Amino acid sequence: MERTEQAQMVLGNLISAVEMLENCPDFSALMPEVRVNLVYALPGARTPDEVAAIDGRITVVRGLPHAPGLPGWGASDHMARLIIEVRKYDPTINAGINFKYDRTVMEIAREYCSERGWLFGWIDRTREPDEVAERDGSSMPWKVKQLVDSSGGVPRLFYEGEGWGKEPLFVALGSRATEVAEIAIEIARRYREKTD
Amino acid sequence: MERTEQAQMVLGNLISAVEMLENCPDFSALMPEVRVNLVYALPGARTPDEVAAIDGRITVVRGLPHAPGLPGWGASDHMARLIIEVRKYDPTINAGINFKYDRTVMEIAREYCSERGWLFGWIDRTREPDEVAERDGSSMPWKVKQLVDSSGGVPRLFYEGEGWGKEPLFVALGSRATEVAEIAIEIARRYREKTD
Amino acid sequence: MERTEQAQMVLGNLISAVEMLENCPDFSALMPEVRVNLVYALPGARTPDEVAAIDGRITVVRGLPHAPGLPGWGASDHMARLIIEVRKYDPTINAGINFKYDRTVMEIAREYCSERGWLFGWIDRTREPDEVAERDGSSMPWKVKQLVDSSGGVPRLFYEGEGWGKEPLFVALGSRATEVAEIAIEIARRYREKTD
Amino acid sequence: MERTEQAQMVLGNLISAVEMLENCPDFSALMPEVRVNLVYALPGARTPDEVAAIDGRITVVRGLPHAPGLPGWGASDHMARLIIEVRKYDPTINAGINFKYDRTVMEIAREYCSERGWLFGWIDRTREPDEVAERDGSSMPWKVKQLVDSSGGVPRLFYEGEGWGKEPLFVALGSRATEVAEIAIEIARRYREKTD
Repeated sequence: MERTEQAQMVLGNLISAVEMLENCPDFSALMPEVRVNLVYALPGARTPDEVAAIDGRITVVRGLPHAPGLPGWGASDHMARLIIEVRKYDPTINAGINFKYDRTVMEIAREYCSERGWLFGWIDRTREPDEVAERDGSSMPWKVKQLVDSSGGVPRLFYEGEGWGKEPLFVALGSRATEVAEIAIEIARRYREKTD
Repeated sequence: MERTEQAQMVLGNLISAVEMLENCPDFSALMPEVRVNLVYALPGARTPDEVAAIDGRITVVRGLPHAPGLPGWGASDHMARLIIEVRKYDPTINAGINFKYDRTVMEIAREYCSERGWLFGWIDRTREPDEVAERDGSSMPWKVKQLVDSSGGVPRLFYEGEGWGKEPLFVALGSRATEVAEIAIEIARRYREKTD
Repeated sequence: MERTEQAQMVLGNLISAVEMLENCPDFSALMPEVRVNLVYALPGARTPDEVAAIDGRITVVRGLPHAPGLPGWGASDHMARLIIEVRKYDPTINAGINFKYDRTVMEIAREYCSERGWLFGWIDRTREPDEVAERDGSSMPWKVKQLVDSSGGVPRLFYEGEGWGKEPLFVALGSRATEVAEIAIEIARRYREKTD
Repeated sequence: MERTEQAQMVLGNLISAVEMLENCPDFSALMPEVRVNLVYALPGARTPDEVAAIDGRITVVRGLPHAPGLPGWGASDHMARLIIEVRKYDPTINAGINFKYDRTVMEIAREYCSERGWLFGWIDRTREPDEVAERDGSSMPWKVKQLVDSSGGVPRLFYEGEGWGKEPLFVALGSRATEVAEIAIEIARRYREKTD
């Protein structure tokens, strides 16, 4: 397949994923303060410009998940760099989504992983050495290495614990945007059942 | 390529086409009263559900072309049926866009076609026989047949003249949504130069 | 009240009216091809710049009425000039909304008016003299005069019959945007009951 | 003025404020991770339901500030409760907006306040006693009291320092939404000049 065709499939798959999320009112309860990033990288992407994301992040309007903009290249920075880094360990991962962390979400996510025999993980931000945090661009490689080392591989679901000035967040990883949307939606459904 | 992959490429190409149009302020001047439909059909599409279109039609917000919704299957009816019908004569056509008709647009479109050696055409709504207009679903086949017969083939640019209760409209046809967006954008640029 | 305060009340009332319409799925069935204009004029408005309207017109996204832009001054031309002209006959009218015309809507609107003792009217576009249609800016005064003369005053609900190249449209008039939204919503409810 | 009229003026003023922000590309650089809340309270508001805010928060789409939803009652929780609490000390405050904190913004904000003879303040989240943080609903009263005590009154501009799991944020307060938008825009302009 050509590069242009691949790029269009990425954008199209993001549209399908957004539609799935917008049709899931339960997902509103998983909205983090920083809003939701949904990203999908081209094969071999090396910079955020080769990673498509929902421009403006997914937010909640009238109680429902809503994408304020279209998918666009370079529309995400942090999540894009996460995917690029993760692929150094597992090249089948192309897409990611973040959502709210709390104790209930954690229990659901852990159970969900164990049902499927998936790895589950977490990044302990407090263990980041000062020299890593201070050197520009070295934080992400350190975090992903710590995640992979402590989880025994690339986990499909993990959270990044709270940090100084940083909201804790969950992340689901997968091969396509529709796949990570599916995971997020299933967790949202179980979350509603547990918190109703 | 699988059906799902084809479907995602269609949606992704529509996103690229929308981005091109949203980045072209000149296109606002080609906005018809009925707003702009931009459609892209799956290979072999037989019903509007197999044709993707911009949900809510493209409109003008803050002076710029703007898509209020995402591309979705079945989001257009009239333009979708037009593409389905046109493909009976020319199976390379998958996408279409409509825009404003006026005398200046017509001159530009005619010239644009002659530069490229493309067929140019028009549908004369006034010649539609009463028995065609009255039988449900027989209007589109009649119109497309009339268009193809009078143009000597499927034209890449044509207009549907005004009718009783119907705004006259221009249509560009092509193999992909980005291709018809490109045509519309070039016409918009020439329109601005002529009307400034 | 100051001019700025009046202007803000107009914008705020438009927001309330939009919210009412967006919460009414039935209203989607009254969407005309040209989409819905909702306008509200400042007291004494003389030009469209003193009339606020929904930027981008109200459209249908995901099956529901949706405002793609915010209310803005000068965002409508035709409906704004209609309100300005109507106020020469009835200065209590400040707001208007248009929606789809068909036989069923007409019957409902006529009944609705007769229940309330309101005037009902229509503009016959076919009776517009050539010299009026050709002189720029003289069409609206002629149309409103014809409407008022034939209805015995300014009607709260009327339609403009189809014309050459013009979709037929219904219009509701009132003192505030929320008032005309209420009328449109009630008609939409009755329309659903009749066409279900 | 009646309650309904006041409510509409609040919504209308929010629309004007949003328009100001959407027209200011510089403001995109002040976007915090949590996105921007813009709120305006009714006189005497006691609950977030009597405070209007931009539904979905203001985000950045295509590089420009963008409101994904309309102003709505109860659309904000944290900022709404902040305004309600602040008014116990200064009843002239009705509106607030938050934006990014960094060292440069702080210097600009401090200078801006000193030029105008305004109070400038900050909330030190690290000084919040455990028993306050743990008791539901007691955090905001504590924070606002600490802010007022340390600033010598209600400051027009202040920041809430970073906390455990919390992004640091700036807040501007004022009597109307357009007023706090004006402050945010002026700071954004100076920020662009300093960081260009």
